[in-house]
This record gives sequence, C-alpha cells and structure tokens, in this order.
Amino acid sequence: MTVVLKLGGSVVTDKETPETVDDDALDAAVDAIGDAALDRLVLVHGGGSFGHYQADRHGVSLSVGSHDAPGVWAIHDAMRRLNDVIVERLQAAGVPALPVHPLSVAVRDANADLTLPLEPTRTMLAEGFVPVLHGDVVAEAEAGATIISGDELVTRLATGLSADRVGLCSTVPGVYDDDGAVIPRISGFAQVDAVLGGSESTDVTGGMAEKVRALLALDSPAQIFGPESLPAFLAGESAGTVVDGGAE
Amino acid sequence: MTVVLKLGGSVVTDKETPETVDDDALDAAVDAIGDAALDRLVLVHGGGSFGHYQADRHGVSLSVGSHDAPGVWAIHDAMRRLNDVIVERLQAAGVPALPVHPLSVAVRDANADLTLPLEPTRTMLAEGFVPVLHGDVVAEAEAGATIISGDELVTRLATGLSADRVGLCSTVPGVYDDDGAVIPRISGFAQVDAVLGGSESTDVTGGMAEKVRALLALDSPAQIFGPESLPAFLAGESAGTVVDGGAE
Repeated sequence: MTVVLKLGGSVVTDKETPETVDDDALDAAVDAIGDAALDRLVLVHGGGSFGHYQADRHGVSLSVGSHDAPGVWAIHDAMRRLNDVIVERLQAAGVPALPVHPLSVAVRDANADLTLPLEPTRTMLAEGFVPVLHGDVVAEAEAGATIISGDELVTRLATGLSADRVGLCSTVPGVYDDDGAVIPRISGFAQVDAVLGGSESTDVTGGMAEKVRALLALDSPAQIFGPESLPAFLAGESAGTVVDGGAE
Repeated sequence: MTVVLKLGGSVVTDKETPETVDDDALDAAVDAIGDAALDRLVLVHGGGSFGHYQADRHGVSLSVGSHDAPGVWAIHDAMRRLNDVIVERLQAAGVPALPVHPLSVAVRDANADLTLPLEPTRTMLAEGFVPVLHGDVVAEAEAGATIISGDELVTRLATGLSADRVGLCSTVPGVYDDDGAVIPRISGFAQVDAVLGGSESTDVTGGMAEKVRALLALDSPAQIFGPESLPAFLAGESAGTVVDGGAE
C-alpha cells in the first residue's frame, strides 16, 4: 500500500508572516504521521510563507522563469529551510524521513513538460525511508528556472509510483458546494464547474479547480481534507471530499 | 567546450577541524573560477572535514550502508552546508552557481551500480547556470544509503556530458613519482602501479590509485593538479599530471 500525502503550505506555515512555521499545526501533523507508521509513505509539502514569499520577490512563477542564479537560489533555499524543519521534526517523531529536492532531480523541456526521475524516491521507499519532496524551482529549457508546485509533484508521484491512496491535507475540510457544505464525492468536473469556476486565481501554484482537475485524472481515488481529518485519512478512512474520476 | 572540475574536499576545508571551511583556499578557487567565466562548467566538491567526519561518526562508507535516517541525514546535511557556502561564494563572485544534491537524484541498485540522471545538470548548463554537485549519501537497494564520492561523480559527469576537459584540483601538485617529482603524463596504469600501489587506503572515498584508474578510462584527457595551477587549468593550459588513457 503506497500512500502519497501532501501537507499544504498553508497548513504548516503561517501564511501571513514570511518564513514562519506554524508550530502547532506542523507538530499535530507530524504526530499523526508518526502514530500511523505507514509502510510506504511519500510526503510532499507546499511553500506557504517560505516559497511563495521568495517567488513573488524574485518574479518567478509556474510560467515565468528566471536566469538570475541568486534569485533562483533564494527561492530554493527558502523551500529547503522549510523542508529541513519538517524532515527533522518527522525524524524526532521516529519517522525515517529523508529529503528529495526537486531542483536536483526534476527538469522541464522547452514545452514546459516535466521530467521527474523517480528512482531515488522508489529506492528510499523500498529501503523503509519516507521521502519528503516540496514545491521548488526547477531548470527549464529556454526559461532558466520556473516554479514546480507541490500539487504537480503529487500527481506525478501518484501516477509514477502507482499510489493506492492520495491525500491533500489543506486548510479547508474539503471542497465546498454553493451552500458552504463539504461535497462528499466528486466524480467529474461538470459537477463542480459552477462552484469552482473562480478559484483558479487565488494561488499562483494552482487553486482548488486545478487540484480537482488533476486528481480526477489519476488512476487512484484522492481525498481533499483539513488537518482535523489527517488521522482518519492515515487510518485508511474516507475524509473530506473524495475525488474519483473512475479511471481505476 | 564542457569542463568538469572537482575541488577536493581537502582543498576547500580544514581537514583537521570538523566542519571548517578553509576560507583562503576557497576564496582563491572561487576567484579563479569567476575570472575564467567558462561557458559550460560543472563543479563537484568533496566532503573534506564536513562529509568524512559525519560519515565516520555514523559508520557509513562506499560499501557499508545505513538504514538510520537521522545518521544519513546528518551526513547529507553536513555536505549540504559545505555546498551552501561554496554556492553562495560563487554567486557573490558572479558565477551563476546552483546546487545539485546527489541524494535527490542518484541511486544504487542491489549490485551497487549507480544511476545518475543528468537531465537537470544538462538543462542547467544549457541555461547558463553552473551546477555544483558534491560527495553525498545515496539510497542503495538492500543497503539503505551509502556514500557516493566526488570522484565517482566526476567520472559519471565527464562521460555523460561528453566533457572536453576534466580537472581534479587536489592538495598535491600532481601524481608523484618515486623521487617526489610530478609525473607530467600518465597513459597507462602500469606506468604508476609501483608508486601508487599503497595509496588506496589513505581515504575512504578513494586514493590516488583509484583516481588515476578512473581517469584513464575516460574518453577525455584529465588533469590532476594543485590549487596553484587552477587558473592555468581554467585557461586551457596543461597543469600538473595529465592522465590520458588514449581512448579519444
């Protein structure tokens, strides 16, 4: 059973204050992951107030690249600092976490198509480690370096590792309908087109509509849930909104 | 013209004191690299008093692996701290350096054969960046994680990138003969077997005999030289000992 879990950047950082970890939220997530002690777990985290702040400052996004090495480095280094904190707290909780930095392994071609060799992640998993990836900068042909989002990594990892379960732990308890209630199950985008139409502009690395679209395309069912449901997800239960395109 | 240059760990660190950069030596190397402003340069550095100290402490070597995540992390983190210093000084000298961490991209199978995807390094080079790799830990099937040496990275990069020139900047001015004079050219191992026979035990990540053997197998000529000859090497001149197996 291979599980891919993303901890949203907004969940583990204080998004209002540059480069600040939300200690209570991170500790709660780390405790839940330690308690679950899953056999084959891959973690991904977003940038929150670490990556987004530096990316904005240096004008780098998913589509706008940079050839300025110090700017690219500043974004990468900020993400690594957040990754360091997460890896070290996981290890302190007995989780054998090791970092995988996308800048070192991933790359985009001139059409912005991503190559992400999964051999290191796969071998870490087989050896009992918990690889921890993160939103980052990656080299891109003809653009210098651009952003790669945590969500893009999740879909790549889920497909490439044939994940059995995929979870996105977000600040909201699921995908809301028009009345503010969590939709229990989404099996096609038409079902949520009206309610998610406007959310793509809320985050440079992809809003809820993009998340749902990407998760619908996966072979495995995915779940979008809030931090309070992380223990339930890790225990194999349904949590938040199940997104299942029916491809399996 | 693609150049692969290794800065030995002993050159850029104080090997007697754990985790201490040799500031004068590193600054001189960085200035030489900045002045040369090569178009396509890949840098590799060894562990010196950063990596070797932690590797010894946690009992990890080229052949003895570990499944202890905090130990593997301590070695990796020490190497990254040295890499951070080198990348930041290069950037301050106008060299568009970016890190490539082997733990994130390289892996060994159960026969200890190395896979090192070169796409990120190749795209960084094409985009004008200077990738900086380093001795590190890598995941290895059935062994947890083992050490990868800077020398192993150099030969992989030289072959995979079809390097035109390969340089190993060491603490010695070249390969010595029996009289302590630098041998100007080595074209086969038989030539140095007698004098290098005993040097393999001097360094867990490979002594001079291993370096010479690996360089003889390359398609491109390589040079082993001391820090005082780095500007000459970068200027395209012959420096120290030229190792040329004649494969080209």
